[in-house]
Amino acid sequence: MTYVLYYWPGIQGRGEYVRLALEEAGAKYVDIALVSEEDGGGVPALERYLEGADVTRPPFAVPFLKAGRLLLGQTPNILLYLGGRLGLAPRDEAGKLWTHQLQLTIADLIVEAHDTHHPIGSGLYYHEQKREAKRRARDFLAHRLPKFYGYFERVLERKLGRGPWLGPRWHWPAVDSVERLAGEANRDAPDDRYLQLNSRSATAAVTIA
Amino acid sequence: MTYVLYYWPGIQGRGEYVRLALEEAGAKYVDIALVSEEDGGGVPALERYLEGADVTRPPFAVPFLKAGRLLLGQTPNILLYLGGRLGLAPRDEAGKLWTHQLQLTIADLIVEAHDTHHPIGSGLYYHEQKREAKRRARDFLAHRLPKFYGYFERVLERKLGRGPWLGPRWHWPAVDSVERLAGEANRDAPDDRYLQLNSRSATAAVTIA
Repeated sequence: MTYVLYYWPGIQGRGEYVRLALEEAGAKYVDIALVSEEDGGGVPALERYLEGADVTRPPFAVPFLKAGRLLLGQTPNILLYLGGRLGLAPRDEAGKLWTHQLQLTIADLIVEAHDTHHPIGSGLYYHEQKREAKRRARDFLAHRLPKFYGYFERVLERKLGRGPWLGPRWHWPAVDSVERLAGEANRDAPDDRYLQLNSRSATAAVTIA
Repeated sequence: MTYVLYYWPGIQGRGEYVRLALEEAGAKYVDIALVSEEDGGGVPALERYLEGADVTRPPFAVPFLKAGRLLLGQTPNILLYLGGRLGLAPRDEAGKLWTHQLQLTIADLIVEAHDTHHPIGSGLYYHEQKREAKRRARDFLAHRLPKFYGYFERVLERKLGRGPWLGPRWHWPAVDSVERLAGEANRDAPDDRYLQLNSRSATAAVTIA
C-alpha cells in the first residue's frame, strides 16, 4: 500500500508526527506537501478533502492520511492505525492501549507548550498576544511542565522502555515528542528556560525509545 | 467484569465521559468518587495509582479505569477501549477509527472551550484571568467555534449518523459532547452567547446519535 499524507506545505507542524512514523518504518507514501499544484498536490489537494461535499468521513483538519479506502484524521488516530500496521507499536491490546495513552499524553503536553505562544488565539500572531504569552509561559513552566516531566521520568525509571512493547526501533510516541519539541524550540519561544526544558524533554523522549 | 472508575469526587469533569459510557451500556462498575475513604475510595485511592511507585503503567491524570488487569488512562483511550467492549462503537476497523476520530475532535473542542475560562493557567481561578478569558472567548466565538460547528454540521448533513455504525442507542462521542458542554454552560461562562452556542452544540451532538 502507498499511503498519502496530507499536510500544509512548508511547515513541520503535526504532519511531522505522521511523516516520521512513515519514514521510520520505511513505508511507501506520497507527501502531498511536496507535490506541485499542477500535479494535484499542495493546498488545493487538502481543501478538496476538507471542504468537499462528497467526502463521506471528512477530517476536521490536517494532517490526514489516505490508506487505501480509509481516510483518517486526528494525529493520535492516524498514529494508532499506523503503529499497528507498520510494526511501531505492540500487537497485544494492553501494550497498544498503553502506547496510545503515552502518545495522547505527549499530545496534551504539546498543546500546552503551543498555547504558551498562543494563549489568546491560534490564528493570532505571537506579537499580538505577547503579554498574555509571557504570563501563561510562567504558569506552564512553574506548574504544568514539571508535572509532565515528573510523569515521564517516573515512566522511564520503571524501565517500561525496556519492556516487551519496545524493540530496538524508535517508537512513535518518542519520535513524535522529539520532533515536535524541537520544532517548538525553533520558534519565538517566550524565554530561554523554555528552550532548555524542551531540549531536556526531547532527551527524555529519546531515552524512552 | 466489574470496572473501577477513578475520578475526583464532587465534580463531573472528564470522569463523566467514562461514567456515561458505563451507564449507557449498563456495565457493572465501582465509582471510586462515591466510595468513602474508610472503604478504600475517595482521593487517597486515586493518589495510590497516580503516585504509587509499584504501578507498572501509571496514568498521568484522572480519569483512569481499572478493567481487570488493565489500568487505562486518557479519556479518549478509555472510550476507545470501552466503545469496543460495551457495544457502543462499530466493530469494523474503519468505523472504529472514524468514531475515535470524532471523539478526539470533540475532545479538542472541549479543551478550547475550557481554555476560554482558563487561558493563562488551569490551576488559576477564573477571576485571576478574567481579562484574558474575555479576549480568548471573543476569539473562540469568532473563529474556532464556527469552525467546529461547521464541521459537525457537515458530518450531520451527510447523514453519517444513519450509517451502519450507529444504532438507536446513544453513541459515546455524542453522550460525551452533550454532558461536557452542559457542564461548561453551568459554569462562569464569559458571556451569554457562549451559553447559547453551547446549547446549540449539545443539540447537534444529540442529533448525531
